[in-house]
Amino acid sequence: MSNGKRLTSQSEDFSAWYNEIVQQAELASHSPVRGCMVIRPYGYRIWELMQGALDGMFKATGHQNAYFPLFLPKSLLDREAEHVEGFAPETAIVTHAGGTKLEEPLVVRPTSEAIIWPILSDWIHSYRDLPVLLNQWANVVRWEMRTRPFLRTTEFLWQEGHTAHANEAEAEEETRRMLGVYRTFMEDWMAMPVVTGLKTDTERFAGALRTYACEGLMKDNKALQAGTSHSLGENFARAFDVRFQNEEGEHVYVWSTSWGVSTRLVGGLIMTHGDDEGLVLPPKLAPYETVIVPIWRDEEQHRLVLDASNRVKVDMEAAGIRVHVDDREGMNPGSKYYDWERRGVPLRLEIGPRDVQAESVMAVRRFTPEGSDRKTAMPLAGLGSRLRTFLDGIQEELLTAALARREAATVRGIEDYAEFQRLIEEQGGFVYTGWCGEADCEQNVKEETKSTIRVIPDEEFRSDGAPARCLCGAPSKGEVVRARAY
Amino acid sequence: MSNGKRLTSQSEDFSAWYNEIVQQAELASHSPVRGCMVIRPYGYRIWELMQGALDGMFKATGHQNAYFPLFLPKSLLDREAEHVEGFAPETAIVTHAGGTKLEEPLVVRPTSEAIIWPILSDWIHSYRDLPVLLNQWANVVRWEMRTRPFLRTTEFLWQEGHTAHANEAEAEEETRRMLGVYRTFMEDWMAMPVVTGLKTDTERFAGALRTYACEGLMKDNKALQAGTSHSLGENFARAFDVRFQNEEGEHVYVWSTSWGVSTRLVGGLIMTHGDDEGLVLPPKLAPYETVIVPIWRDEEQHRLVLDASNRVKVDMEAAGIRVHVDDREGMNPGSKYYDWERRGVPLRLEIGPRDVQAESVMAVRRFTPEGSDRKTAMPLAGLGSRLRTFLDGIQEELLTAALARREAATVRGIEDYAEFQRLIEEQGGFVYTGWCGEADCEQNVKEETKSTIRVIPDEEFRSDGAPARCLCGAPSKGEVVRARAY
Repeated sequence: MSNGKRLTSQSEDFSAWYNEIVQQAELASHSPVRGCMVIRPYGYRIWELMQGALDGMFKATGHQNAYFPLFLPKSLLDREAEHVEGFAPETAIVTHAGGTKLEEPLVVRPTSEAIIWPILSDWIHSYRDLPVLLNQWANVVRWEMRTRPFLRTTEFLWQEGHTAHANEAEAEEETRRMLGVYRTFMEDWMAMPVVTGLKTDTERFAGALRTYACEGLMKDNKALQAGTSHSLGENFARAFDVRFQNEEGEHVYVWSTSWGVSTRLVGGLIMTHGDDEGLVLPPKLAPYETVIVPIWRDEEQHRLVLDASNRVKVDMEAAGIRVHVDDREGMNPGSKYYDWERRGVPLRLEIGPRDVQAESVMAVRRFTPEGSDRKTAMPLAGLGSRLRTFLDGIQEELLTAALARREAATVRGIEDYAEFQRLIEEQGGFVYTGWCGEADCEQNVKEETKSTIRVIPDEEFRSDGAPARCLCGAPSKGEVVRARAY
Repeated sequence: MSNGKRLTSQSEDFSAWYNEIVQQAELASHSPVRGCMVIRPYGYRIWELMQGALDGMFKATGHQNAYFPLFLPKSLLDREAEHVEGFAPETAIVTHAGGTKLEEPLVVRPTSEAIIWPILSDWIHSYRDLPVLLNQWANVVRWEMRTRPFLRTTEFLWQEGHTAHANEAEAEEETRRMLGVYRTFMEDWMAMPVVTGLKTDTERFAGALRTYACEGLMKDNKALQAGTSHSLGENFARAFDVRFQNEEGEHVYVWSTSWGVSTRLVGGLIMTHGDDEGLVLPPKLAPYETVIVPIWRDEEQHRLVLDASNRVKVDMEAAGIRVHVDDREGMNPGSKYYDWERRGVPLRLEIGPRDVQAESVMAVRRFTPEGSDRKTAMPLAGLGSRLRTFLDGIQEELLTAALARREAATVRGIEDYAEFQRLIEEQGGFVYTGWCGEADCEQNVKEETKSTIRVIPDEEFRSDGAPARCLCGAPSKGEVVRARAY
């Protein structure tokens, strides 16, 4: 129970606010294992709702789930040169098992390409076996130095899509399709607007031709990479000899992709909507979309309001709303309000004896856009379907507000380096600039400003008049989105 | 595609039959990691359907999902003496991570008691915090010497329930409740009858006071332990100092339970219903409950039957049936029949041009009980709801048949050791005998007959007239169920 604990304000110390909200809303807690968190029931329920939505979208686009081993023999990880270079330094290694030393050490998967491709090479023979469209829900381990709950943990939960295609065009189309699925999920379910685009070579996945990403902007004006989709070319097919006979009878390599999102999304959700009162959850991902708080003084009133609360609950469940009646005794209504506000429940219904007599309830929003009322009295008749509409409206309002916030923190057309430095230092946010295309220049700006190129934005996110020059003064080869990031 | 491959018959070599069916129905395949299998999409979908049903039952009994770390610091595993003795010999150990040797080795969880209880000790303070009712869906690793797909693998997927209670009676009630949930799932969803009861001390979970189990009887007359539920007493609470203030103000230890089922259930499903033609799936756990095979000779017929097939599909989906239209070209209908029979699809609908004209389809069952017709012509009108009822009937018939098979392979009231030895050697199955209660006697019988005491059966499974004497001749202290087992 969060009741009574003070929460640091976002403006005071955003990082402290984040850590406190994770604890106080009982989303996660620390564990005795360095860098590993425990996902508590309330936090895990949010992840389950995310999983359910994503899994449905993956299946609707033709993907099937499968499960591959947790361990990779070290020799397999070593096969793709760039991949092993990127991942080996942060792996956990099993050297002993069953009481003896292993002949070959096993790597706990940091990602599964190096175990999936040697296996798929047995499944794929002909063009008729393609495309292969797989997804896996799993835990992975990356030995990170600095960890934060949800945002960066040694072990995390994720899904990893792995697909094989007959040619580059189909692989590229799949890579883009899944980036689109992620964007739709982030906007429609998380109410978190994202900018999509291509990563620069220095930021792409180790072993990929191209990496695309969704970038959200958090309330502290730092960017969060929320999901990535990789066009892997023939790289893994060559490393693991995954070939098929094409329609012309030739044995050629498959083209593959991989794409993933993780429990990091829960961190994104917290930092997109949370405020100084605590968590703010969009209805679609709230463990409870509504909590009913009955108010009573004596036993007679207790029976009356509890009975009414339970009838409202049944009505709401019939309208497809996740609802909870907080009938805890020995706790006053104000404390309950405080508790559920801290936990981000989108809507609270207060039901007292007078409300029952008036056949109405008082609905109180967690998030109130400007110009709307925080409290609304609503008649009991037809309440379920009215609240369904009301909650769907809140979902949309959260996206609108998050979009407005991001736009207010986005500056376009910056060419002057001093101005760029001032913007990054003083306000953060997304800064659109030109880029000469050189990795050295990218690295200089990163070292001097702690900002990185988040993406080379997709067409729909490009500015009308992009700068002609890079921050270094050289001619720009295209627009980029820069920010300090998690 | 399984088409054309010969399947060893069950009577010829049950073990070979099992391995072939796992491969040919594309349920799982081997991996480059010793003892670890790959769960292929068709097998994983069965597991997903199992998960969905079980998860609903866990939530309906008040449990919440959470997630705890994959790794246990070795010192934590060492805390509960009996527990570490039972599990340490089969663990996998991480000694290096992030490029350096770890100060303390990490154990990959073989089960999670040793990481969950130190964490829960921070969550539980007062009797008002109890009961704690948690479940985790996760992978675990046990370094097994001899492995078989689904039945015994080094890594496997499972769920593990972990609960804390204020006293022994409530913990015992929970242990029994979850055993009942497992039994209901196995009977109602898997159509796999089980005998439930108490494990002997030598067979109980390392660290438990009492272990209860569900025991199925496979088609080769060997028993399969399909699920276990443990009353852990105060053992883990004492080892990890998990105490709470009770209503009297005393600080006392919690009473805990744990319970689990795993991907082993998929193996149980295969061996409960499969036959010489391949897999036989109960509708409730079949990735496709029905496959529609359109039959055509020319383009005109092709359009006609495909159109009719898709209309039937829509009708069936509206009735809540998982259905697939097999419209593969270049493959004759007979090969498709063979393929889906091998994969155990409960019902096939054949739709040819004449069927379309007659406004009917031919429905062909995978499993046909004696006295029923394998093929039934059915009118197109109202097909969806008729098939829903038909499939529900097949589900029941499978349970009835499995129950009859088990009863036919069960012998009760055996007192004579020579007769017992002959029964176990020649027919297998469940043999009910008396037991003196001595571990030495239990061990002797195990060594001499390779059979074990599966359970001390719950009251509803006890015989009317149980033997007065154990197989060793000493007075019996109660009836037991013995069998050779997986």
